[in-house]
Parts: sequence; structure tokens; C-alpha cells
Amino acid sequence: MKKIKAGIIGAASLVSGKLIELLLNHENVEITCLVSEHFTHKSIGQAHSHLKGVQGLEFEPYDLDQIEKKCDLVFSAKPHGESMEKIPELLKLGIKVIDISADFRIKNPKVFSEWYKVDHAAPEILKKAVYGLPELYFEKIKNAQLIANPGCYPTSVILGLAPLISLSLVNTDDVIIVDSVSGISGAGRSLSSNTQFINISDNIRPYNVGTHRHTPEMEQELSLMAGNKSIRVLFAPNVGPFNFGIASNIFLNLKNNKTAEKDLFAAYTDYYKDKPFVRICKPDTIPEIKDVVNTNFCDIGVCFDKRLKCCVVFSVIDNIIKGAAGQAVQNMNIMSGLDEKEGLPYKHALNKKKKPTEIETCAC
Amino acid sequence: MKKIKAGIIGAASLVSGKLIELLLNHENVEITCLVSEHFTHKSIGQAHSHLKGVQGLEFEPYDLDQIEKKCDLVFSAKPHGESMEKIPELLKLGIKVIDISADFRIKNPKVFSEWYKVDHAAPEILKKAVYGLPELYFEKIKNAQLIANPGCYPTSVILGLAPLISLSLVNTDDVIIVDSVSGISGAGRSLSSNTQFINISDNIRPYNVGTHRHTPEMEQELSLMAGNKSIRVLFAPNVGPFNFGIASNIFLNLKNNKTAEKDLFAAYTDYYKDKPFVRICKPDTIPEIKDVVNTNFCDIGVCFDKRLKCCVVFSVIDNIIKGAAGQAVQNMNIMSGLDEKEGLPYKHALNKKKKPTEIETCAC
Amino acid sequence: MKKIKAGIIGAASLVSGKLIELLLNHENVEITCLVSEHFTHKSIGQAHSHLKGVQGLEFEPYDLDQIEKKCDLVFSAKPHGESMEKIPELLKLGIKVIDISADFRIKNPKVFSEWYKVDHAAPEILKKAVYGLPELYFEKIKNAQLIANPGCYPTSVILGLAPLISLSLVNTDDVIIVDSVSGISGAGRSLSSNTQFINISDNIRPYNVGTHRHTPEMEQELSLMAGNKSIRVLFAPNVGPFNFGIASNIFLNLKNNKTAEKDLFAAYTDYYKDKPFVRICKPDTIPEIKDVVNTNFCDIGVCFDKRLKCCVVFSVIDNIIKGAAGQAVQNMNIMSGLDEKEGLPYKHALNKKKKPTEIETCAC
Amino acid sequence: MKKIKAGIIGAASLVSGKLIELLLNHENVEITCLVSEHFTHKSIGQAHSHLKGVQGLEFEPYDLDQIEKKCDLVFSAKPHGESMEKIPELLKLGIKVIDISADFRIKNPKVFSEWYKVDHAAPEILKKAVYGLPELYFEKIKNAQLIANPGCYPTSVILGLAPLISLSLVNTDDVIIVDSVSGISGAGRSLSSNTQFINISDNIRPYNVGTHRHTPEMEQELSLMAGNKSIRVLFAPNVGPFNFGIASNIFLNLKNNKTAEKDLFAAYTDYYKDKPFVRICKPDTIPEIKDVVNTNFCDIGVCFDKRLKCCVVFSVIDNIIKGAAGQAVQNMNIMSGLDEKEGLPYKHALNKKKKPTEIETCAC
Repeated sequence: MKKIKAGIIGAASLVSGKLIELLLNHENVEITCLVSEHFTHKSIGQAHSHLKGVQGLEFEPYDLDQIEKKCDLVFSAKPHGESMEKIPELLKLGIKVIDISADFRIKNPKVFSEWYKVDHAAPEILKKAVYGLPELYFEKIKNAQLIANPGCYPTSVILGLAPLISLSLVNTDDVIIVDSVSGISGAGRSLSSNTQFINISDNIRPYNVGTHRHTPEMEQELSLMAGNKSIRVLFAPNVGPFNFGIASNIFLNLKNNKTAEKDLFAAYTDYYKDKPFVRICKPDTIPEIKDVVNTNFCDIGVCFDKRLKCCVVFSVIDNIIKGAAGQAVQNMNIMSGLDEKEGLPYKHALNKKKKPTEIETCAC
Repeated sequence: MKKIKAGIIGAASLVSGKLIELLLNHENVEITCLVSEHFTHKSIGQAHSHLKGVQGLEFEPYDLDQIEKKCDLVFSAKPHGESMEKIPELLKLGIKVIDISADFRIKNPKVFSEWYKVDHAAPEILKKAVYGLPELYFEKIKNAQLIANPGCYPTSVILGLAPLISLSLVNTDDVIIVDSVSGISGAGRSLSSNTQFINISDNIRPYNVGTHRHTPEMEQELSLMAGNKSIRVLFAPNVGPFNFGIASNIFLNLKNNKTAEKDLFAAYTDYYKDKPFVRICKPDTIPEIKDVVNTNFCDIGVCFDKRLKCCVVFSVIDNIIKGAAGQAVQNMNIMSGLDEKEGLPYKHALNKKKKPTEIETCAC
Repeated sequence: MKKIKAGIIGAASLVSGKLIELLLNHENVEITCLVSEHFTHKSIGQAHSHLKGVQGLEFEPYDLDQIEKKCDLVFSAKPHGESMEKIPELLKLGIKVIDISADFRIKNPKVFSEWYKVDHAAPEILKKAVYGLPELYFEKIKNAQLIANPGCYPTSVILGLAPLISLSLVNTDDVIIVDSVSGISGAGRSLSSNTQFINISDNIRPYNVGTHRHTPEMEQELSLMAGNKSIRVLFAPNVGPFNFGIASNIFLNLKNNKTAEKDLFAAYTDYYKDKPFVRICKPDTIPEIKDVVNTNFCDIGVCFDKRLKCCVVFSVIDNIIKGAAGQAVQNMNIMSGLDEKEGLPYKHALNKKKKPTEIETCAC
Repeated sequence: MKKIKAGIIGAASLVSGKLIELLLNHENVEITCLVSEHFTHKSIGQAHSHLKGVQGLEFEPYDLDQIEKKCDLVFSAKPHGESMEKIPELLKLGIKVIDISADFRIKNPKVFSEWYKVDHAAPEILKKAVYGLPELYFEKIKNAQLIANPGCYPTSVILGLAPLISLSLVNTDDVIIVDSVSGISGAGRSLSSNTQFINISDNIRPYNVGTHRHTPEMEQELSLMAGNKSIRVLFAPNVGPFNFGIASNIFLNLKNNKTAEKDLFAAYTDYYKDKPFVRICKPDTIPEIKDVVNTNFCDIGVCFDKRLKCCVVFSVIDNIIKGAAGQAVQNMNIMSGLDEKEGLPYKHALNKKKKPTEIETCAC
């Protein structure tokens, strides 16, 4: 098979560093173009120190002709607001695009501008964009030209809630509470006192509670899944003293207060029965970040508190892999007719139809 | 003034290490007796390596006669279940006791045995015990002979909710969600794979969700404060990759959906206006663990999400100080007629009536 | 090409967890047998929680017949002292063996028993064993049946010193000082107060200074390289508060006190010019652990202090990859006629003859 | 006794944050003046978030008249180069000064300008300055008006070597190798990619090897102690993934290659027999940072490698306390006729003549 000729714009970002790493291990991809205005003509080791010594690759300026010549597919890791400036012209050239920014995730441009404080630059293209969560939209992704790669927090939350919501088990009158802790890599390479070791270590910091821009993304996808019943999410993100991973603790009410935990478990394993990257924890057990870091897995546990009639879902991912670069590779694979596991950790281990059940040590 | 002659039973525990440290810096205390069966006749540096070289102190066996001779007041840091075996005989001798274990916190022995899976050994003494949260029970503590020193998580949660509940602002029909992250010191020195560096670092781990034994303690105190209206708490504890501190994120519904955040702030600063160890974050700001570690402070922030009509309270403490040893010293001070700040960090800085208001950098 | 049928004995160890992970991503390998007495008949997720959900693999008891049937090559990750009990019978069956333990690294059984406090169980096989440091012994590894996979510390130190010693630049009258810091994963999964979070975090701990068993391994290989001139190493290992990586700071005297740093740099780049996994830092720059974690690289920097006429070499690796499992895979590749980079990170990026030179941000 | 009226210039620095904390717990001190140009008229919580809520203190501009009126003693925590601009005028007013910067540590202004790349602004005052290491210069400090508070690394190294050098045990022909790891707080609050969590965690970074400006300070003091025999130090500092503490591993040759470890231990305990803040590890044991963090202790272990005839000294301190603010308080106490332990951790525990001997768990 001919290799996919892949380019990256915004190629000096932290997420791009991981994406390049994954693509360098991918059998069916050739990296043909790395665009960074800031690092133009520098070697990739200058931006991504773990990749120093990798040869034959250096950063280029943004040049549409070059991209057309060299690329079948482009990943955009440019910041929100900048990505939508470039993507329309790439699409016109027939190039496939996977946008890792938030620019094409929110389908309603009014909602986008409310939360992102900027008007959408290409609202006419929003309809073309497929929300790139493969566990939900595999078929649409296959035929898409433009993928809106999901946000890190929404990936953990939407996958965590999908079985309950699609089976109409959730009491949607009540607000769903999401309390998530993310590693500091979520802030990329931004330099501020908020990213200094002395302020992150031995600490945990809530931020943008109720106002974080991943909120409308979660609400959009969950409401769609609920047959356009409006789902409201109170989203409380926190930064924790580690580099990689997100743990989302999700609190909600079910319609049926006599729900048995084993039925919830069965619903989850059935819903995800042929999804290689979702693993479900056995009843009474809980997932942990450490088991998904450096992988493309989303591990999910679901508990039901009989005393209080509340349901708690625990969902963990690597924020930079399943929450960004790994999911982008998964999307690329699907768009290109490849096995979705290609180039991702443990690809040879996940070939059969899986029943994702392992006992955890922690009691729920 | 004559110095308080203080003893500790269970003196080799991690909490006792911090307690000894605080007492060694206290002007009005002499440590007269450190009891540890396991470390009998060993120097204190053997159990508490940071205290090596401290002289004139070694561990003794438990000997009631010696304790009677040497001690005005005894701290018990023995484990739950063992503390209640010893405390009755100490009380009979007229010794004041501060119990850092959970044995005398739950007023109803039936509730105690349900959650702690053991019958109470001294139910007749439960009524004598005062719940040692000085911000709530200062006057009772003054005259108490037995203090039940509060649990770490409950300290953060009860202080975080007290103004709202005592002012009857909370909708008590709905369950209150508490999602807390604790440093690993909460597990003491217990040796298991759950306390190993490789399983704690780069990780976050929920445990005992809905079943943690601090739940009935929170519910008891909050319900009392609500005029015996039953308050129900879904408590989700997590262990994070740091040694010291607890951050509790608390989600609740208010009765009045038009509440203004500045009114909540005013309610909190008024409620705690003469409490030296509680600091309230200005509206739109959030407390962080790093600012309370190594202190006896509880920092609290309160937010109101106008869109969703939900209230979120953030409460942080040092789990070993305000959550255990520091609060025990504060209780000792009050029982002994001393300034409650004696021997605790920044005592000279907190003399005046304080208005605990400082801007935080984080947006709420 | 037919896939290598690979087995692992001692397959529940921490190193085996990483080895299985690497083999699951390897195009030319099929894992056919995982032996663990302790985890027999359990799924691999029980021992390696990040591998839960991997199917078709479970632990087996040690059964020589089964191993003969199923395996072309066996990795032994059994502890020192146990590995040498099993390996002779595997070799007799014609199976290739890569021993990750220390049992076949020391060529002189008397030296082995002095440092390891146990007599060698198979001294007659010691001569067959090839010390598996591919950058030094590529040709011998190609034809070996038994590989003694190097220790983690020695890998960093021997690679760090090889150019200087093989070019006879070192003053061998003086002791070479090696001060190394390792991540806690070097202790495997052993459960003790020394591996607890509370004793590792916010700390650094020297141990076994001058007596660590990797000392004779370093001295043997360096002395061989020096034409059997005896090289003496004072080795000071330390444990640092991180999981993965080793940083070795090496202090030595050169014969020529007018050495120019750029000549040292040239010596290193020349020595390693066709070695894909060694990267040399430009003059005045220093390698860091974070750039080699999760890779099979060894990054080396060399400085010369003109004022004091001392040479300092900095060498960093991932202790579990280049220091154990990754190097074992590299050895397997060479023994099997495969590209040595197969199955290891960035394989597609390192195809050309490399000149491993990137500027570091740190001044030397 | 009348309280010392103490001021701080450069009062917004990280070290000043710890200094204020210590002074707020000190019985005999009143903080009368906190100077910070940058934070003028702001509350101290703005610069030192853990001190928010402390009342009656705010930052002032530098105003010599005010300082004269308000202060008996001034600490300067201004950066190197700026401190020496202000100190002469403070001295003229009769104020006692403790300079935490490096400006008055190096007695030879030529050496100062070589290493600090700036001419000394007040060379005439250098002779007045006493190097404030109380374990060495107690008597001189008592009568000094100006104290040059030692650097953090030199404190650990000079205390580690003082017994050996003052007893003429060291072979001074050979370079002494010092490999130190410091917590990131040594970099203060400086904002750069080098202080970001993502670059410090899971990492260790050597820097300024052979060129660090603490080198001449160590060499000056060690040479003085050696009777002006020149001592040369190859100093290799590293930053580790923790906030507080320095561990210095020191490698040297003794004159007598038959030295017994117990004699070294005896030499150390004798040398420091009445020094409350130095603790000596028993033979075959090693100090650890975690035991000195948050204290003013320097813990020292000394080993002799019989095989190689090398001596290794391990010395650990809290870099911000014994290495800066705590030592400054200790100096203030001595200059003011107070017990040197006043206001420092465990003051009541260290009253008797101490014999600082505790078994450590680690083998040397």
C-alpha cells in the first residue's frame, strides 16, 4: 500500500511532538511536511527535544503550494482561532484535514462565538466537519474530508456517558456534575506562573469552573445522543501535579433508582463490545490514569450508590494521546481505510473482538 | 504559667510525628510521655526520622500509672477501634484526652458500628465527647474533658458548608456531591502497593466512593447544623500524587436560584469573621492546597454558576495539620485557656480581628 | 518473514511489563509464552495493569516441554540467582536466550560470587554468554545463543566512557567517580518503606555507595576496553523522585590536560557515527533524562573543565528501556537478522547514517 | 526583652516569603518594614500567597528615612549586584545588615568580578563582612554589623568538609568533586522554560558544571580552613524534581589510606558536638533530604571506601532554610544575643548538649 503523505501545521506544539512521534512509528505514513512559522528552518529537535537526532525533517514556513505538492492529509495543531483561517484553503485543494483545535467542533457558530469570544471565520464549512470520536462516528469519519478532533476533557466525558445516555437511562432534568483532573501538559508549552513546577507540584488547582470552553462541546454531543433533549453539564476542571492524563469523575441521577450495578456494567461492555480502545472496569472497580498513560485507551468504571440513588462514572484517558494526537491518528487510519489501531500502542494485541473486562484493585 | 504536661499514645504514627514537631515548638507545653508498644525504648528518631537527634525523649510502653504521674493531657493517635479501649481509663484518672481517631466522633453507636464494622467499646462515654471543630464548638471545647478530633476530609467539608447550612441557604432535598483529593499521607505509614511511588506518582485514584467512613461524620455534623434536617452527602475521595493536603470540591443546590456570588462571599466572611484559621477567597477566586500546606488554615472559595443555578464550594486544608495534629493542638489550647493560635504557624500575625480576604490568581 | 516466537520467563516483573508492551508493537514477533509461577493462569492485566484487556495471553507455569514447543527465543527476567538455574536447560534445547538478570554478565565466577554473595550455578556456560551491549559487541551478538543483557547503570556508564577509554585518553591511575541518579522503577515492584511515595517524593537517597553490584560489571567492561588495564570505578547510585530514567555524572582525569572540548565531541560523534541509539550533545550542552524516557536512546554530553583539568561525562538513558527491555529487544533483533531498530521508538526516523548532534539549552 | 525591629529589602522574593514566615513565629522579633519596589502598597499575600490574610503588613517603597526610623536590623534579599548598592548606606546609619545575596561573600573583589561578571560596588566594606556560617564563625558573628549569609550549596559543602579539612586529613593535591542536586526553589520565582513543571518533573538537569558562582565561595572558605592551602573544587550542580532541599555528594582523597570509618565518625561528632543544627549519621548510614526539609538542620554522613581508598561525604540541607532564610535568622539571633535556635524548628528539643547520632535505614 502506498504510504499516506502527512503534513502538520502548527508542528512545534506539544501535541505535535507526540503526533510526530506516533507517525514515526506508523508503518503506513510518511511525514512530508512540518509547518511552523516560529521554528522555520530549524531542526525538529529544537522544538521537540526528545526527537533530536531525527533526520531529514525540518520545519518549513506555511506555503500552500508546497503543502499541495507534498500532502494527502494535513493535521492542524494551530491554536483555536487560527486553525479556521487556514483550513478552508486546504480543503479546496482536496486535502484531507484533521483539525486538533476547537474551531470545527461546535456546530452552532453562535454558541462557538459565545464561548470562544470570536466570530467563526468559516461557518459555511462547519457542516462538512465530522466530530472525530471514532467510537461514536466511525462511519461518518470514514468518508469525511474534515475532522474536528475532540477536546481532551470531552473525550473522557462523552465516552464515559455515551452508553447511559444513548440507552435513555439518565434523568436529564438534573445537571450532570463533571469534576476532572488533568495533567499540566493540557496547557501545552505556555509559559506562566501557572505552569511553573513550584506552583503545580504538591498542589491541585481548579480553574474556569462552569466557564471552561469544553462545556458546550460536551453538552452538544450528549444532547445529540439524547435525541436533542438538552443535557446540561457543570464542568469543573482541575490541574494536578503530573504531566499526562485526565481523570473525570462524573455524578448523575438515573431515571430508575433501582438500577443494579451489574446491569450498568453489562450496558457498557455491550455498547463498547467492538471498540478496541475502550476498556470497562468490572463492577466495584475503578480506572486509574496510570494504566492509560502512553496509550490510546479510555478506561471507564461505573458505580451506583444504592444508599443515595446516585450514579458515578469514572473515565480516564491520556490527554495528549486519546485526548489529542492518538485520536487524530485513529481518525486518519479510519479516513484512509486502515485498521484504526495502526501505529497506536499494542496494535497486535487488540485484533480479536474484545471483551474489555479486568478486575481492578480499588473498591468503587 | 505552668506548662501543660502532654503525652501521646500511638506516638509512632505519621500524625504523631507532626504533633510532636508542633509541641516541640510550643511555648506552653512539655512533652512528658510518648507511648508506642512497637517502638518501646527506642529513640524518637527511629519512628520519625526528621526528629532524630531530639534528646531526652524515647518511646515507652503503655503504663497507666506512669501516664497518671506525668500527664495533664493525652493525645490518642491510636488506630480506630483501639483508641476507645484506652480512653475510658484515662478519663477516670481526670486526664484530659484529645482523640485523633474516629472512635468518639459518631454520636450514634449504631451508625458507628454500621460504618466502622465494630461495636463501640464505650458507648456511655460518647455523650461526654465534644466534636473538636473549634470554629463551630469553641465554647463546648473550653470545658470538655474528651475531644473527638475531626477527620481530615470532614474538616474541609464541614467548614466549607457551615455558613450556607447554618443560614438555611441549601436545598436539602438534593444530595450534596463532595469530590475530594487527598495527599498520600492520609494513608499514614501503611505499606501496600497502593502507597508505592510507582502507583501514586503520575496518577490519581478514586477509592471507597460512597462508602468512605468519613461520610456519616459529615452527615451528622451538617444535619445538626441544619436543625436536624437530614443532609445527605455523596462523598468521593481520591488519592493524588502529593504528600500533604486535601482539596474538596463541593457541588450543591441552593434554595434561591438568584443568589449573587457577592452575597455568598459576605455570608462567609461574616460567619468566619473572628476565626483566625479560616480564610475566604474573594469572589471569582479559588483556593489552592499549596497555600495551606504546613499551616493550620482552611481556605475556602464559593462560586455560583448563574447558567446552571449550581453552587460550588472549594475548601482546602493540610490534612495532617488542620486535618489532624494542628487541630488537636488548637483544641488543646482552647481546653487549657490559651490563645488558640499558640504553637501554630504565624501566631504573631493573626492577633487582630481579621477579615480574611485576598485575591487569588485563579478564576472561579 | 516468519515471526519470531518469543517467550518470557519471570514475565510478571516490572521489566517484563515493558518488554511485553514493546513486543506487542513489534512487526516480527509473536509472544507465545509468558511464564510466571506466581501469576499462573491469571490474565496479564493482573500483573501489568496497563495491559489489561490484551487478549489471548495468560501466564503459564514453567514447563520445559511447552517452552520447547512454543519458543524460538526466551527472555529471562527472573531475579539474579534464579535465572542461572533455568538457562542451561533452555540452551540445551537450542533455544536462544536473552538473560535480563545479572547472572551471566560477570565473566569471572569468583568476582561474581564476591559481589553477588552466591556461587555461580553454571560457570561452564559463562564463556558462551555475550555481553549484550550492541554498540560495542554487535558482531558477537549476531551469532550468540546466550546474551547477558547489561545492567541499567552500566549501560549508561560504559556507553558514556567507551570513546575515551578505547582511544586511551583516560588516566587510568585515578579512580573514575560515577554519581548516578535512577528512577524508582529500578527497584521493580518490591514492597518496602524505601519504595513508598512518602519516602521517595521530595527526596533523593544515595544507597550502596561503593558496594553496588553493578560496579564489577562496569570495571570488567571498561578494563577490557582499556586492553586489560585495570579501571577502577567508585560508583555512587542514588534514587530520585521519578519513575523512569538514569542520569550518570562521570568525573575522570584525562592523560592530556590540554584537551579541547571540541576534540572530545569529535571523538564521540565519530565513535558512535553509525549507532542509531546514541546521540551526542554539542559542546557546552548537557543531556537530560526527560529526552530519553520512553525511548531506547542513550544521550551523552562531554565537558572539559579547563581550570581544573577534569573531564565530566553526562550519560542518560531510560533505565527500563535502553537499560533493560529495549536493549533486550535490540539484542533480539540483531540475533535474528533484523534491523536493530525494529519495534523500538522512532524506527522510521533513524534509517540514514546519523550524525547525532543537537544543541541543548543547558550550559555545561 | 525588647523585640528586634526587623526589616527586609527585596521582600517579595521566594526566600523572603520563608523569612517572613519564620519571623512571624519568632518570639523576639517584630517585622517593621517590608520593602519591595515591584509590590509597593500591595498586601503581602500578593507576593506570598501562603501568607494571605496576615494583617498589618504591606510592601513599601525603599525609603532610607523610614528604614532608619523603623529598623534595628535589615535583611537584604535583593539580587546579587543590587544588594551592594544599598548596604553601605544602611551600615552608615548604624543598622545591622544580613545580606542574603552573594555580594559580600567573596573577600577578594577581583575573584568576585571574575565569577560574577560585575565590579564590586563597595570593596571597602568587604573586610567588615563576616561570612555567616555560625558553625564556623560564631564569635565573629556575635560582633558583626554586616553578615554575608552563605550560599545554599556552599553551606552544605563547607559543613560537610569542615571536620576533615580543619583536621588536615584531606589530600589537597587532588581536586574535590562535588555533585549536588537542588530543588527548583533555588531558582526563586524566575519564569522560564527551565522552571516549568513539564521540564522539571520526571527529570534531572545538570547546569553550570565547573562554572557555577558558588565555586569560589566554597574554595575560599575551605582554603582558609586549610591554613590557606589552596583547595580546588569541581562543582557540578543539578536541578531535581522537588521543591526544597539540597543533597551534596562529595568525593575526595584522604592523606591516610588506612582511615577507619569509625574514626571519621568520631571526628565529625566531636567537631560538631555543641552545634545544635548539625546531625551526624552513624557509620554506614546516609542522610536524606526528606529529613531536613522544613528544618534548619544540616545532616552529614561520611563513608570510606576501603577498596578504592576514597572518602565520600553526604551533606543535606533545606536550601531555603539552612541554605538561606533559616541561617539568616540564626545569624540574627547570634548578633542579638539570643539563643541561636530561637524562632527555628524544634527549639525546645535541642537545649542540651547534643550527640547527634541516629541510625539511618540506608546502607552507605
